Amino acid sequence: MKWLLWKAFTSLILFFGAREMFNFCFLSQAYVDSSVIMGQTGQFQTRVEKYENIEYMKCTPENGFFPDLSTVSPTNIIFFCSPNNPTGFAASREQLTKLVQFAKDNGSIIVYDSAYALYMSDDNPRSIFEIPGAKEVAIETSSYSKYAGFTGVRLGWTVVPKELLFSDGFPVAKDFNRIVCTSFNGASNIAQAGGLACLSPDGLKAMQEVVGFYRENTNIIMETFNSLGFKVYGGKNAPYVWVHFPGQSSWDVFGEILEKTHVVTTPGSGFGPGGEGFIRVSAFGHRNDVLEACQRFKQFCK
Amino acid sequence: MKWLLWKAFTSLILFFGAREMFNFCFLSQAYVDSSVIMGQTGQFQTRVEKYENIEYMKCTPENGFFPDLSTVSPTNIIFFCSPNNPTGFAASREQLTKLVQFAKDNGSIIVYDSAYALYMSDDNPRSIFEIPGAKEVAIETSSYSKYAGFTGVRLGWTVVPKELLFSDGFPVAKDFNRIVCTSFNGASNIAQAGGLACLSPDGLKAMQEVVGFYRENTNIIMETFNSLGFKVYGGKNAPYVWVHFPGQSSWDVFGEILEKTHVVTTPGSGFGPGGEGFIRVSAFGHRNDVLEACQRFKQFCK
Repeated sequence: MKWLLWKAFTSLILFFGAREMFNFCFLSQAYVDSSVIMGQTGQFQTRVEKYENIEYMKCTPENGFFPDLSTVSPTNIIFFCSPNNPTGFAASREQLTKLVQFAKDNGSIIVYDSAYALYMSDDNPRSIFEIPGAKEVAIETSSYSKYAGFTGVRLGWTVVPKELLFSDGFPVAKDFNRIVCTSFNGASNIAQAGGLACLSPDGLKAMQEVVGFYRENTNIIMETFNSLGFKVYGGKNAPYVWVHFPGQSSWDVFGEILEKTHVVTTPGSGFGPGGEGFIRVSAFGHRNDVLEACQRFKQFCK
Repeated sequence: MKWLLWKAFTSLILFFGAREMFNFCFLSQAYVDSSVIMGQTGQFQTRVEKYENIEYMKCTPENGFFPDLSTVSPTNIIFFCSPNNPTGFAASREQLTKLVQFAKDNGSIIVYDSAYALYMSDDNPRSIFEIPGAKEVAIETSSYSKYAGFTGVRLGWTVVPKELLFSDGFPVAKDFNRIVCTSFNGASNIAQAGGLACLSPDGLKAMQEVVGFYRENTNIIMETFNSLGFKVYGGKNAPYVWVHFPGQSSWDVFGEILEKTHVVTTPGSGFGPGGEGFIRVSAFGHRNDVLEACQRFKQFCK
């Protein structure tokens, strides 16, 4: 199954009015971009840098990267990514329990993106379905891209529980199946064979090795920025390090690093308005490149 | 690139009101089914077995399988498949010239499906772009599925000419690119490697061998039905034989053949209202199976 992973760092809610509109969102899966070009999100509000039909849930160090649900307007769909890209934050059992309750209270459906779950090193939930009652309010999506280097191979999966129903009692899974069979027809059979190989004992072992290698990269990057005195987030449960440059523009920091070290980072504001003042550093690289980049960061900060 | 090939045997026109609606149709490519579930085609009219916003162009032996364009209402989009599935009919240069002119006169865009072009044995056009002026009114889609046995591998292509513009002068190719990059991100890299191999000298030779093998199957099937006195269409330019059972129901014929010979054909009416009274026989099979099936048809008709 083709995967479009939502990478916006803020947790995000979409307003939709009708079941048909919800169905369209299936086509875009965990990315909001397709909803934008389909017009579901309304116009972009230049002044506030937001789409009018999206309720943004700001996740910053101030709220521990988990939104204050008491201040959030209810919506039909809630996109939630944990462990999060780019912040690297993974929600706790208690937080996810609150999210499930919030969805139940408001009749929302959670689209839960767990593409980085294998990178988790603590015992926070790997899946929304670890939370009692989640099957009645959530869909979960994931991918082989980050587990087995399948970026470009295009394979992932979605879990749509039988228990998840529209307000009229119709199973969401039936609509999902109809849409996937009509518009998609299935992933390349070669990619599917690769996915099955990943699930064999040898494949599972190989995926753990891949994840372990990138975890070492992540540690190297975290140690580097910590040693330079930066406040660093993420890294523990995700292959991304979220570095704070308080009061600075993400793009300015990005540009300065690029010019002075020739290393490409990602400006945090590119993920959404709450990313301003951060850069994301990715651990997906060859070891020597990561070591070289960290060496240059140290030179840069001298 | 993922391919959904439109298999409706009637040439078909969709009414869309706006550029946005046209864009949605890109997502469904050569199949109309996605447009149906998106609501673009309107409601299904049970009485006439048609969708209200689709103008059906009936293609039967009476009109030589090419529609009488003088009786067709203008629409925004025209889906046209040549060589056609299921009739096997390939439009002539003169007919396609008329189609291009019709599109120009009405401001329509032709979505031309040439998935069977390699099966052509006469010198009718292999591509809509052989017709002068077609670049200003047509998109062409094709696939490796029928050329190289890629069904399930999922690879095809679309040609969107720079010359094709919306009525406001904006290039269709720019919107197409935006949609594909946002909603799709590209075919599996493994499938793409396979597609490149198909275009090598060895690959082109292998594709011709595959097509030649199925052409032999097609001839065996055509000879069988001809020898039994049936009126048979298609076969010359496509791997499908379109067998006429005048006055009979496609599903009844299908059922009788299935029960008495245990061979699966395809009831013509499944492709649309104009297919009633026909069955489609596919040449995509192992030689021994095709020979066995033809033997059984002969027994069946004794």
